[in-house]
Amino acid sequence: MTEELNIRLARLCNMMKQEKIDACLISTNVNLLYTTGRIVLGYYYIDLSGNRLLFVKRPSSQVGEGIFQIRKPEQIGEILAEKGISAPSILLLEGEELPQSEWVRLVSLFPHSSIFNGSNFLRKVRAVKTAYEQVLLKESAKRHSEAYSEIPSLYHSGMTDRTLSIEIERTMRLHGNLGLFRIYGASMEIYFGSVLAGKNASEPSPFDFALGGAGPDPSLPIGANGTLLEEGMAVMVDMCGNFTGYLSDQTRTFSIGRLPEKAYEAHNVAIEIRDTLAAMCKPGVTGDALYERSLAIAKQHGLTDYFMGDAQKAKFVGHGVGLVINELPVLTSRSYDPLEEGMVLALEPKFVLPDVGAVGVEDTYIVTAHGVERITTAEDSIIDLTAR
Amino acid sequence: MTEELNIRLARLCNMMKQEKIDACLISTNVNLLYTTGRIVLGYYYIDLSGNRLLFVKRPSSQVGEGIFQIRKPEQIGEILAEKGISAPSILLLEGEELPQSEWVRLVSLFPHSSIFNGSNFLRKVRAVKTAYEQVLLKESAKRHSEAYSEIPSLYHSGMTDRTLSIEIERTMRLHGNLGLFRIYGASMEIYFGSVLAGKNASEPSPFDFALGGAGPDPSLPIGANGTLLEEGMAVMVDMCGNFTGYLSDQTRTFSIGRLPEKAYEAHNVAIEIRDTLAAMCKPGVTGDALYERSLAIAKQHGLTDYFMGDAQKAKFVGHGVGLVINELPVLTSRSYDPLEEGMVLALEPKFVLPDVGAVGVEDTYIVTAHGVERITTAEDSIIDLTAR
Repeated sequence: MTEELNIRLARLCNMMKQEKIDACLISTNVNLLYTTGRIVLGYYYIDLSGNRLLFVKRPSSQVGEGIFQIRKPEQIGEILAEKGISAPSILLLEGEELPQSEWVRLVSLFPHSSIFNGSNFLRKVRAVKTAYEQVLLKESAKRHSEAYSEIPSLYHSGMTDRTLSIEIERTMRLHGNLGLFRIYGASMEIYFGSVLAGKNASEPSPFDFALGGAGPDPSLPIGANGTLLEEGMAVMVDMCGNFTGYLSDQTRTFSIGRLPEKAYEAHNVAIEIRDTLAAMCKPGVTGDALYERSLAIAKQHGLTDYFMGDAQKAKFVGHGVGLVINELPVLTSRSYDPLEEGMVLALEPKFVLPDVGAVGVEDTYIVTAHGVERITTAEDSIIDLTAR
Repeated sequence: MTEELNIRLARLCNMMKQEKIDACLISTNVNLLYTTGRIVLGYYYIDLSGNRLLFVKRPSSQVGEGIFQIRKPEQIGEILAEKGISAPSILLLEGEELPQSEWVRLVSLFPHSSIFNGSNFLRKVRAVKTAYEQVLLKESAKRHSEAYSEIPSLYHSGMTDRTLSIEIERTMRLHGNLGLFRIYGASMEIYFGSVLAGKNASEPSPFDFALGGAGPDPSLPIGANGTLLEEGMAVMVDMCGNFTGYLSDQTRTFSIGRLPEKAYEAHNVAIEIRDTLAAMCKPGVTGDALYERSLAIAKQHGLTDYFMGDAQKAKFVGHGVGLVINELPVLTSRSYDPLEEGMVLALEPKFVLPDVGAVGVEDTYIVTAHGVERITTAEDSIIDLTAR
């Protein structure tokens, strides 16, 4: 793991140099996991002079070279001074994630430093995965796909979206899913993923996921809402692929009996969009080109009104994945950063057809030197759950 | 629901008056749920002049009196000005929860106001539950208890803590559990709760829960770690009781075969502590008195070294519950605020015995005018999972 972490820190420090950032003080779970390989309640100080100090409040048992047990962050300044580490000119803190009170407290430890809000910078660092991170993503995607192949065997007549979801959750867990669904953004909440049946796919949610759903309760307005699964409904399954700490993203569409023909047509257009975008993806391509192409294909098939939602639409067709489900880049009309080798993307063209439900697919891809490699592999046609 | 929300807002405004807070701008999911009965991506403005304006970014379909669709928070200031609402002298923002960048943006909308960091204040408001909130907590506790009564039927030989957990999760879900485990504190993470078997109960975690456990992966260092359930192990089950948006908290201890006698003795001491504290609880009693009494009883039985953990100890014996699992008050040695009628508390005396595991109980209580009412009711002796 040390070698792996050195690769990540080398990338981080290289990008810090480019942005003229002298040091980082990291304390969010995701960035601690990325830079130290584990989660502690504490702070990781990294600077361009090669200093690496991990300050740990909990657990109290942490020992090792470069690890310092502390009770409060004010000790960080004292320890840095003892070590003769001079204050950075520009210090990165995670300003989109740190609560305001914690930010103020940490800023006060560095009275002679300029503070840089580096949450988005760190997301850019994490956007390109190392070879080992790609292994973990492939492992998640493999198990995710294996678990999805069991979905038809879980269905029985009389189920609701909710009871089907419960059996899928159990199956995913038995395949090794960790359950935790990490999302970037303080107000983003969901439990395990979503199963959207019939008209519930049209229900808007407050969250910035691709689709919504009314959810089971006012306290959780997303996903399955207890809809009885009935003949002619599309059932979209989009569950969290967290089997390794790295999250694959994969959506599949099922049906209860036969759907109206337009549903199969729209599903095939979704696959056409996915495959067209996948063929376009390579280093240098920008997200806006991918997004605009997806809109153009939807329009060409007369499906604009249903693309990425009907009443409320998502304004993206894909996004990075990794330690959180919504890593960079996000594929929107304003996504101008070029793709890079080692990025991992979910492409998720979806249509919401009133009265039928949501159709479409989502798959996870690794950007390679000359194209992409798809790592989620479950059968992608609309599978009739009543047909077995 | 309107009447219920008016009761909550009356309590909030009454406490704002006492603290000389003129207005609140609320935007975290939990406080939006508390004050509006639902979650939106947006902001709720409440002032002592009776103004109530809900500014909604998502979903885009929200309409109604006092609801304003916005694209960005800067519109809040414009709309307040249009309505002739004057800037508050003291404005509350949620400073322990808002990301620093969001805080700065909101502060800039109120250049003539003093800003008060009101996260803890709002926790105090939420600490005393209305009659309806108590109904929802009782409903969660009832279903939580019913689901726990099925745990013995879920066990089979050869299970790990993880596979037992998966079957408990499914059973909880089938009883109506929403799955989402809301916690106060940005760095607090867990999936559904914890099943701790044998020595894993001694493993410290970075999180401020009562006990730890190594967890299944470095990315989730809490709870079950794949321990094979074997003769002589204690198995502690502490799963999230979120059936209504309000979370009951309940821990039960099981065994694989017969445990060493000291485990039953320690478990009985835990029940003695729980019942002693419950008998002490009434309005006016302070948390420190409860905590110190729990330490005294543990000491009297020679169990100090094992109380609330062995290698790493939790420094509390109970806590409020509600929309999050860790509401106020927290029962620690520095908890000086008196209990009030309508508070809902979890009491969780636990012992970690090396080589055996964790024993003890946790139950949820409503503080009444003269005492407490226990609302979690599952059998509380150590149940042998192999005995059926």
